[in-house]
Amino acid sequence: MKVAMLGTGVVGQTLGTRLVGLGHAVRMGAREAGNEKAAAWAAATGASASAGTFADAAAYGDLVVNATAGTVTLLVLDAAGPANLAGKVLVDVSNPLDFSHGRPPTLSVCNTDSVGEQVQRRFPDARVVKTLNTVNADVMVHPDIVPGGHTMFLCGNDADAKAEVRVMLETFGWPRADLLDLGDIGAARAMEMYLPLWLRLWGAFGTGHLNVKVMVGE
Amino acid sequence: MKVAMLGTGVVGQTLGTRLVGLGHAVRMGAREAGNEKAAAWAAATGASASAGTFADAAAYGDLVVNATAGTVTLLVLDAAGPANLAGKVLVDVSNPLDFSHGRPPTLSVCNTDSVGEQVQRRFPDARVVKTLNTVNADVMVHPDIVPGGHTMFLCGNDADAKAEVRVMLETFGWPRADLLDLGDIGAARAMEMYLPLWLRLWGAFGTGHLNVKVMVGE
Repeated sequence: MKVAMLGTGVVGQTLGTRLVGLGHAVRMGAREAGNEKAAAWAAATGASASAGTFADAAAYGDLVVNATAGTVTLLVLDAAGPANLAGKVLVDVSNPLDFSHGRPPTLSVCNTDSVGEQVQRRFPDARVVKTLNTVNADVMVHPDIVPGGHTMFLCGNDADAKAEVRVMLETFGWPRADLLDLGDIGAARAMEMYLPLWLRLWGAFGTGHLNVKVMVGE
Repeated sequence: MKVAMLGTGVVGQTLGTRLVGLGHAVRMGAREAGNEKAAAWAAATGASASAGTFADAAAYGDLVVNATAGTVTLLVLDAAGPANLAGKVLVDVSNPLDFSHGRPPTLSVCNTDSVGEQVQRRFPDARVVKTLNTVNADVMVHPDIVPGGHTMFLCGNDADAKAEVRVMLETFGWPRADLLDLGDIGAARAMEMYLPLWLRLWGAFGTGHLNVKVMVGE
């Protein structure tokens, strides 16, 4: 499959490298065509990896991953272009963490809205699936580094899109039984508002290699 | 121990009954001295249970539990009276769920503040410990109804107060290893912002008998 990876940070690079390793072709998108981080990543990752603008990448991919900061996601997707997103599965792994007021970061959108919902509203022809935003990049693509089983949430309005993303998550190593569909894209609000707790957990354990496992009784 | 239980709802009644069962004396506080729910609970629960105003209860208790809705907590504690809270452990189990705009509820405070922090700021002589707000009332007092072990968060600025609350949680049935101290009262923000996810989990599984277990890797 051809994948557009929007974002050149740790999350974009980790997901891009893992997807290439699984046999996919990945084009990393950045603001400028000559972005050094994207070019260096593509050169280091092999023949199935390439780099371009956000629009180049989005036009190339059959599936689009938003690995940008949630605070700039809408600007990035505007640059990618609605026509390049229409009809495609758009995997949104972003979080609206705002460090401009110091630490702990606040969320630039929450409570009455979320990045996932904003993206789906602005690009109604994209098939947005929110997932992976609740774990760090290493755990995203190698869930077994946190032993004992743990839960990956996903949500979105399009059942077929969610089924496709489930398959992708399974190839990353997520057992099917640990994938939890929380429903429509409105659940993105819940998934993003979990981030402050996740940051506290990171602080408490001194590692981002953690996650939660949902336990259910009668 | 003498406990003030502020709030006459399901959470207050469940916690009050459990504490009486464990040998404590509990006075349930309500807005009016003759509150029917509080009186009925006290009559049904036995000689160690009594009812009164918020101030009556707070004056009575060596330890105070805030089991009111987070949206009215500050008003309730004002009525309880600062002098009746000073120096005491104040266990805040509330959530600021606001149903006035429909469902899902929003939080009346979040992101830059929390009920736990508001309470500690307004009553600096109280020793606030936030805990139990992330599970439903049944799970609070009988954690074993969710099998497999799962995590109870707590936070607060006073280490001795947290140690006292840990003991109370252990008597409810929480294994010491499942109690997770997230640090100062600022973590109340993270614990309260988890609520939207908890509500989605309830929706996904059709039961409130659930919780998350924190899993940690290397």
